[in-house]
Amino acid sequence: MSTDKKIGDVGNIGNANFPVDADGVVYHLGVKKGQLSQRILTVGDYGRAIKLRDHLFDTGKKVVTSEHRGFHIHTGEYKNVPVSIVSIGMGTPMMDFLVREGRYVTEGTMAIVRYGTCGSLRDVPVGTLAIAKECVLIRRNPDHWHADSSNQVKPYDISKAVKGDTEMVEKLTNAFTTEFNGRRQVIQGLNATADSFYSSQGRQDSNFDDHNQELIPSIIQTHPDAATLEMETFQLYHLAERSTVEPIKAAAATIILANRVSNSFLGNDEKAQLELDGGRACLEALISMKL
Amino acid sequence: MSTDKKIGDVGNIGNANFPVDADGVVYHLGVKKGQLSQRILTVGDYGRAIKLRDHLFDTGKKVVTSEHRGFHIHTGEYKNVPVSIVSIGMGTPMMDFLVREGRYVTEGTMAIVRYGTCGSLRDVPVGTLAIAKECVLIRRNPDHWHADSSNQVKPYDISKAVKGDTEMVEKLTNAFTTEFNGRRQVIQGLNATADSFYSSQGRQDSNFDDHNQELIPSIIQTHPDAATLEMETFQLYHLAERSTVEPIKAAAATIILANRVSNSFLGNDEKAQLELDGGRACLEALISMKL
Repeated sequence: MSTDKKIGDVGNIGNANFPVDADGVVYHLGVKKGQLSQRILTVGDYGRAIKLRDHLFDTGKKVVTSEHRGFHIHTGEYKNVPVSIVSIGMGTPMMDFLVREGRYVTEGTMAIVRYGTCGSLRDVPVGTLAIAKECVLIRRNPDHWHADSSNQVKPYDISKAVKGDTEMVEKLTNAFTTEFNGRRQVIQGLNATADSFYSSQGRQDSNFDDHNQELIPSIIQTHPDAATLEMETFQLYHLAERSTVEPIKAAAATIILANRVSNSFLGNDEKAQLELDGGRACLEALISMKL
Repeated sequence: MSTDKKIGDVGNIGNANFPVDADGVVYHLGVKKGQLSQRILTVGDYGRAIKLRDHLFDTGKKVVTSEHRGFHIHTGEYKNVPVSIVSIGMGTPMMDFLVREGRYVTEGTMAIVRYGTCGSLRDVPVGTLAIAKECVLIRRNPDHWHADSSNQVKPYDISKAVKGDTEMVEKLTNAFTTEFNGRRQVIQGLNATADSFYSSQGRQDSNFDDHNQELIPSIIQTHPDAATLEMETFQLYHLAERSTVEPIKAAAATIILANRVSNSFLGNDEKAQLELDGGRACLEALISMKL
C-alpha cells in the first residue's frame, strides 16, 4: 500500500477523531514516529526554516525535508544532536497542530523552542531580541459585535499568564546573551499572543470597526512587564503546561521587527542576519537540554 | 528601488501599524493594488489552489501566481471574469490576513467564497457538500486551566451566530446543487469554526487534558441546525459583516471529510474529484455576483 509513499505523503485515514493513515502518518504534519526529533526549533516563515537548515545543520550528515499542509519539516543534526526545524506559518491553530501531532509521533520528554518575529510594547530599538518568560492570550470576542444588546461584552479577552519552562527559558536567554554578546539588546518579559495580527494587536484599520483603541493601554496596565506581541507562543506554553503523559519543555524568542511605540520597522537585511544568529542560539539552547 | 522586485516580494516597511512597503505591497499577502481580484475563491490547501488554477482557469489567458508567508495567490480568468484563487493554510488568523490585507489592496464591493474541508456533526455520508448559512466560533478559554480557582470558567466559549451574505449563500447553494445534480447530497446548515482541529472540535487526545467531552453535545443542544466543524469560516463571515467602507459578500462551502458521528473519513481519490467539481461550482457562483 505505501511503497510509493515519500515522506510528507498521507494515505487514506481510518479514524476521524485523531486522523492518522495506515502507516501512522499524522494528517497535517505528514510524518510518523521516527520522522520528527524530540528537539524542535519552530519558526513561522518557511524561508527562515530553509535558511537555518542550510546554514546551521552539520554538513555531511543526512537531512530529511518534508512538506504537508503548510508544515515544512527539516530533520538533521546540530553538533551531532538530532534536531527538527519546523516552519508552521502563523497563528495559534498552526502551533496547536505542531504540539499535538508532534507529541503523537515522538517519545519521551520534548524540548520545543520557537523563534519568531514580534512587535514591541516597549520603546526598544527594532532588532532587539526578546525572550518570553511568560505569556498571555488576547482573543477577540465576537459577541461584543453580534450580541443582542451590544456593549455588554468586552471586545477583547486577555487571559491569565502562563510561564515557559524555567530551565528552557534560562538556557535560551543565556544562549542569546552569549551569541549577541552586547551587539544587540536581549530582553526578557511577558509576551502577548494575539488571535489576529491586526485588531487583537491594537492595530488601527479603518476598513473595519475593531473597537480596539483601548487594547494596548489595557495590556500594559494589567501587565507592566509586557514586552512583545505576536501570534503563536501562548499556544505552545499552554499546551506544554497541559501535557499529561510526558513533559514538554518550551521556550520562545523573537526578533523585535515592529516598534509599536515609535512605529518603526526593521529592515530586511538586518532581519536576515538576526534570523541566522538567533537560530544558532536556539539550537545551542536545544541541544544543551538533558531530555 | 523596486526594479528587481517580482510579485510576492516585500520591500522594507515604513509603518508598524499597517505594514506596507514603498510600493504599497501588504506585508503578508505580498501583493499590491491591481494584483488581487475583487472576486476571491479561498481554500486552505496549497495543492488544491494549484489544481483549481490548472484545471478551471480559462486557457490561453494570463495567469499570475505569487507566494509569500504561506499565502499562494493565483489570479486569472474564469469565463472571462477576473478571479483570484488564494490558499491561506489553516485557522482564523490566516483568514483574518486574507480579508484585511485583501480589502486593503482591492477597491469596491468584494465577493469571497471559501471552499474547504470539514467534519460533520450530522450522520451524512462523507463526501457530502455543506453550505454554511451561518456560523459560530468555538474558542478554547485557557483561564479554565490557569485560573486561581479552577472550574469557575468554562473551558470553551461558543459565540453567537453570524450569517453569510444571503445572496452569495443562495448563489453558492444553487451552483453546488446544479454541479452535483443528485450525485452527492448538498446540505445547508450552521457551521462551527474552532480555534483548534483537536480540543475545540471535541476530539479526544489522551496526551493533553482538554476537558472537552461535553463540547459537541453542547453545540448540538444550543444549535440544532449545526452541520459542520472547521477552522476558518467564522472569521470570514464576522469580518465581512463588520466591514465599514465597502461591502464584502461572503459564503462558504465545505467537503465533509470526517463524519464525527460514525467516525468515517473520506478517501483521497474521492476528495480529489470533489475538490475540482466543487471548485467549479464556487467559481460559477462568484462570477454570477454583480459587484
